[in-house]
Amino acid sequence: MNYLEKRILEDGIVKPGNVLKVDSFLNHQIDPMVMEEVVNEFLNYFGDRKITKVITIEASGIAPAIMLAAKLKVPMLFAKKTEPSTLKNENRYESEVHSYTKGVTSNVIISKEYLDETDSVLIIDDFLANGQAALGLADIVQQSGAEVAGIGICIEKSFQKGHELIKEAGLDLFSICRIKSLEDGEVQFMEE
Amino acid sequence: MNYLEKRILEDGIVKPGNVLKVDSFLNHQIDPMVMEEVVNEFLNYFGDRKITKVITIEASGIAPAIMLAAKLKVPMLFAKKTEPSTLKNENRYESEVHSYTKGVTSNVIISKEYLDETDSVLIIDDFLANGQAALGLADIVQQSGAEVAGIGICIEKSFQKGHELIKEAGLDLFSICRIKSLEDGEVQFMEE
Repeated sequence: MNYLEKRILEDGIVKPGNVLKVDSFLNHQIDPMVMEEVVNEFLNYFGDRKITKVITIEASGIAPAIMLAAKLKVPMLFAKKTEPSTLKNENRYESEVHSYTKGVTSNVIISKEYLDETDSVLIIDDFLANGQAALGLADIVQQSGAEVAGIGICIEKSFQKGHELIKEAGLDLFSICRIKSLEDGEVQFMEE
Repeated sequence: MNYLEKRILEDGIVKPGNVLKVDSFLNHQIDPMVMEEVVNEFLNYFGDRKITKVITIEASGIAPAIMLAAKLKVPMLFAKKTEPSTLKNENRYESEVHSYTKGVTSNVIISKEYLDETDSVLIIDDFLANGQAALGLADIVQQSGAEVAGIGICIEKSFQKGHELIKEAGLDLFSICRIKSLEDGEVQFMEE
């Protein structure tokens, strides 16, 4: 069992509707020790790739992404969320992302200045559930002509469809914790 | 001249309306080397305080705040922005923050679980202009009974009123770069 899995069992709270509350250490209050362990897990898995950029989406992906980028000595880029608009802006890559949790669709945007076909990009996020955010970021990376080096996730809800969608898209996915079930208020991890 | 000032002169772009675009290294694409220099400046100034928590506001304050928190070995907490609501939530501290840049008012919120009167809190943000975000965070810290140990800012637009408002509130403000003027497309720093 890795450090993040231990912290989830100690400090995570399961809420109705398959919600795992980890805002005491991961996505509201953030424990830097958790970040350091998370970064080491990502380095173990992705460290030998030639990564030129780490990207994530605001807001809670920023902490693990910048700390990993600092270790890899490459820039970090975070996509911003905006209202969907029919007005296209020539200077940015855009992808529509639907959040099932919040019931809203946003545009995620990255300036064209900072991604191009010479880049090999690692996508980082705190959670993977239905995969919409990760697939939106992968779409942006591919629009730029850059390569998706992989997708690194802190906590995956493996009982939702994100894992399968990312695998079907042929992308290399590494999730530090894979949760099989949150039924009856209990966290069960996938077996290795 | 410090490292951040040099990068502003090299890579910052002055846009009409006193806008300084630094999204190639500070608030969209983030250069981890800039973050390391910024963290060192904050440590030089605030390093001897007894700080128990670093707080910021989503999204672009998160990168410097988590990297500083990692050095101080204390938790980082980021306030979330929500729509203003007349419905008060008992479980969180709230403060209204008006953005002059975006012309919108948001509620910034922090869960009551993570701040109390035993805390001494360092507030970090990337920009200081009219001071509304920093003062909103200070308001939240004070609601909790905690102490504001100080306010650390990467780039201050000293020709706007934030600096004065924070000083008037009796708070200890340290800005790594203080910009006197962006007139005629040229960045001028305050003299030491």
